[in-house]
Amino acid sequence: MNVTRINASSKTYYVYVGEGLRTKVEEFLPKTYSSILIVTDNLVAGHYLEDIEHNFDNERVYTAIIENGEESKSIEMFHQLQTKAIDCGLDRKSLIVALGGGVVGDLAGFVAATYMRGIDFIQMPTTILAHDSSVGGKVAINHEKGKNLIGNFYSPAAVIYDVDTLKSLNQKEFRSGYAELVKEALIADGTFFNTLMSVNLSDLNNTTIADHINQGITIKAEVVEADEREAGIRKYLNFGHTFGHALEALQGYHGFSHGEAVAVGLLFAFQVSEETFSIRLPFERLFSWLRSNGYPLQLPELDSKHMLSKMKLDKKTEGKKVQMVLLQSIAQPITVEISDDDLLRHIELFKKTLSGRF
Amino acid sequence: MNVTRINASSKTYYVYVGEGLRTKVEEFLPKTYSSILIVTDNLVAGHYLEDIEHNFDNERVYTAIIENGEESKSIEMFHQLQTKAIDCGLDRKSLIVALGGGVVGDLAGFVAATYMRGIDFIQMPTTILAHDSSVGGKVAINHEKGKNLIGNFYSPAAVIYDVDTLKSLNQKEFRSGYAELVKEALIADGTFFNTLMSVNLSDLNNTTIADHINQGITIKAEVVEADEREAGIRKYLNFGHTFGHALEALQGYHGFSHGEAVAVGLLFAFQVSEETFSIRLPFERLFSWLRSNGYPLQLPELDSKHMLSKMKLDKKTEGKKVQMVLLQSIAQPITVEISDDDLLRHIELFKKTLSGRF
Repeated sequence: MNVTRINASSKTYYVYVGEGLRTKVEEFLPKTYSSILIVTDNLVAGHYLEDIEHNFDNERVYTAIIENGEESKSIEMFHQLQTKAIDCGLDRKSLIVALGGGVVGDLAGFVAATYMRGIDFIQMPTTILAHDSSVGGKVAINHEKGKNLIGNFYSPAAVIYDVDTLKSLNQKEFRSGYAELVKEALIADGTFFNTLMSVNLSDLNNTTIADHINQGITIKAEVVEADEREAGIRKYLNFGHTFGHALEALQGYHGFSHGEAVAVGLLFAFQVSEETFSIRLPFERLFSWLRSNGYPLQLPELDSKHMLSKMKLDKKTEGKKVQMVLLQSIAQPITVEISDDDLLRHIELFKKTLSGRF
Repeated sequence: MNVTRINASSKTYYVYVGEGLRTKVEEFLPKTYSSILIVTDNLVAGHYLEDIEHNFDNERVYTAIIENGEESKSIEMFHQLQTKAIDCGLDRKSLIVALGGGVVGDLAGFVAATYMRGIDFIQMPTTILAHDSSVGGKVAINHEKGKNLIGNFYSPAAVIYDVDTLKSLNQKEFRSGYAELVKEALIADGTFFNTLMSVNLSDLNNTTIADHINQGITIKAEVVEADEREAGIRKYLNFGHTFGHALEALQGYHGFSHGEAVAVGLLFAFQVSEETFSIRLPFERLFSWLRSNGYPLQLPELDSKHMLSKMKLDKKTEGKKVQMVLLQSIAQPITVEISDDDLLRHIELFKKTLSGRF
């Protein structure tokens, strides 16, 4: 088991990564709780809910099962979970357990952050992608007009990551999680990037996956500790996300998974970086790795202006100009303001670059 | 003008109380903002919205007008204001101005706390009651099952209190605000309590009101600085609120105003304190002052068990037992756990005490 300490400005907590952790959750809790509400989704529930429930001798353990998928990060589901918490009699000394991927973590975390103005919650990620969202205290729901527009910075009491639970993931989910690992490598660790470019996603064991996750979490933790509230360098974690989020939003969160959209966004950010700084980045190497690991790289029909307006809805947009994270070289990120005209030109060029390869 | 510095753990901000402040708002802002959304209600808008808008040279000033009243602290209105903020293009460097009473402050504050995971907001209270809610960083909306159940601790960037705006208040609103001042006096300052018991609410001038508000804010500030997140002594500010909130909830937030309900709650807390500690408190003096100042003291038909269950929904309830703030003597508050049986008995007795006087 690997333990990473996260010194957030508002709270210190620990991330535990290892095998079989889901059966000894109480060992990792910072204190005892008056009652517990486990929030999970209908897919995860069948695999692991029973294991988690068995952890707690406490008789006051309740369960809320949401529909798997991004649509659950809605204001309606947020309100339903608040109602559930009230009906179960949760008080300020209760705990919410977020058992699942990023959707469950973001939603249940935001419920915990706002229920009676904030109660404790723990993250129990069951996807690789959630290694990213479970650390750092960002919780949110979506608005019809954009992703994660309503939320808080609210740290978990602990992150308990049982890598055994990754066995039930399909290849699409593996791809999605590894896109964020590649992003973390790109903004902070060239050696890790080289490691990742040498693996085949269909050929990984638990030990290797745990090692990759730990490296990703270490990068994330360093950035979050330096800048919890995203005033400065935390923005670098959004590398690839300006295009990625817009692509997801335009697809109505169908089609491309989050990580798959980010993967395309990484290529877009490479292209903009190369032109902006007149440099060469390993575009071909990344493209080949993504293609050989089955990432979808063919864009749907995109109206460039529509795409631009979606990008401008991104939370990192200030004063109506898009702030994009670019690379000056591997592990040297920087935030740059891009004009609408330049962005439009890049979108057009990028569409041509990708379509020319299929 | 009086300035009070609030050292909250998360932020330091200032409370400005004085006459004519609404026309020089920019002097009190801690920085400049990319755009501004003024949230107010339909009653306040007619009186002061234009004055506030004139403060900002900035061309990007927007307005959202909600219906006056507690019903606006709903999840639907919360969502509408988020939509408005998005449509106006507010970004992370934008400001929300909460111009109005506690409803506007709580609602607009919670929107600011959660919009893109938190942007700045300022409180511009236009009621006496809001002297309490505008300081201390509690923001929230109501759930159908209880008041303020969904919210955050989120400090404003400044509180700008123009006492001129209190001129448009009616007597019911004066009573409501003064009930919270009486509560603050009771938990912290016997001299201030004596002062208040000697005034007639229909005979106050701006200078006296500003003085009372400043004394209330000073008490509130000391408590909040010591315990921002309500782990300990901040609970004392809920003196009178266990019964008060339940009374409001049972009335569907009609009939008794918040402060009027709290006033009755103060009497209830007096009664429970007197019996619990075998002491005498100035019940008669407070009762007489409330009656002579027109506070409604006749309870509606109340089912005692229903009342009890509403009290147990209070956020301060832990492990299903009601925590009530009592007085050991004036300015000596303490939190005590009260059993359901004792509470039921007290409710029955209190109903008799009040009804015997009319």
